Amino acid sequence: MSDDKHLIEEKVSSQEILKGRFLHAFRDVVRLPDGSETTREFVIHPGAVMVIPMLDDGRLVLERQFRYPMGRVMIEFPAGKLDPGEDILTCAKRELLEETGYVAREWARAGVLHPVISYSTEFIDVWFARGLTLTQATLDEGEFLEVFTATPAEVIDWCRTGALTDAKSLTGALWLQNVLSGVWKLDWRT
Amino acid sequence: MSDDKHLIEEKVSSQEILKGRFLHAFRDVVRLPDGSETTREFVIHPGAVMVIPMLDDGRLVLERQFRYPMGRVMIEFPAGKLDPGEDILTCAKRELLEETGYVAREWARAGVLHPVISYSTEFIDVWFARGLTLTQATLDEGEFLEVFTATPAEVIDWCRTGALTDAKSLTGALWLQNVLSGVWKLDWRT
Repeated sequence: MSDDKHLIEEKVSSQEILKGRFLHAFRDVVRLPDGSETTREFVIHPGAVMVIPMLDDGRLVLERQFRYPMGRVMIEFPAGKLDPGEDILTCAKRELLEETGYVAREWARAGVLHPVISYSTEFIDVWFARGLTLTQATLDEGEFLEVFTATPAEVIDWCRTGALTDAKSLTGALWLQNVLSGVWKLDWRT
Repeated sequence: MSDDKHLIEEKVSSQEILKGRFLHAFRDVVRLPDGSETTREFVIHPGAVMVIPMLDDGRLVLERQFRYPMGRVMIEFPAGKLDPGEDILTCAKRELLEETGYVAREWARAGVLHPVISYSTEFIDVWFARGLTLTQATLDEGEFLEVFTATPAEVIDWCRTGALTDAKSLTGALWLQNVLSGVWKLDWRT
């Protein structure tokens, strides 16, 4: 895997094709491995954080939120975009507090996922939180969501039945299952 | 959960903001649960299929592909977009054959995932394939990828180490782990 010349695409030029209020997209001309050229269109994204919040009794904190492109309410772990220049753990703490009202005593980074590798630069850093204390949620203007709790067994079963189909939360369930079984270890910090 | 009026957003109007060669995006004005209005920008996507191909010896068929928005080669299960009007299983068979050269005797649908619920309508249907026979791959023009095989244990460990961060493939690993352990059942058809 050291030499990927037969796979790598090189940027030839780049053009902004959309500067929306939320979406920011580019069309790049790229040189393919065989020397020919094509275009790649993609969204630029600042990155995001997802938190898997574990209550002292073992239950998890989740959200139900209407997702307009889906046209329905989705079950998700709390998550949110990085503010400009914001540290990832700071973002995780801020989003957990703003959306759910919880403050965590301990944090552990699981890893990162890339939701849409073909047309967005987005990454989502995945964190676990425990030692939770409930304070007051302060949703962003125009943000409406419902916070609820469920057992890990319920969440993992929803991945099977299709009640939970959000890819970042499915990835969270993979981490959850392997952390709870003891196969994957987390490095907790206060 | 029967009454989600406190969560649901209603479309007021819709405007096309990007008609690219690949990306197609809209900005809708929506009415929020409190009666105020905001805008939602999102990509329209035809949907896609991912295949988890299991060889008779238990190994899995995967791909290494350069993903331009990521700027690097990614490990993925075979996947591809639905052609207009195409049946989902037909698409799964076509993409598996085109990208890897394999034909499967048996198929089982696992479920569906939504990679990016905040700004794309994309869904990815998840299928398992077995009884594989190798024929000849026929990649699309401008498509370059490397097909390889790995054990389920290797794939699941790559999810832990960060060698595999593609969200659809992470979801595939969740299915794989629970199917192989016998906890989740598949309904195989020929």
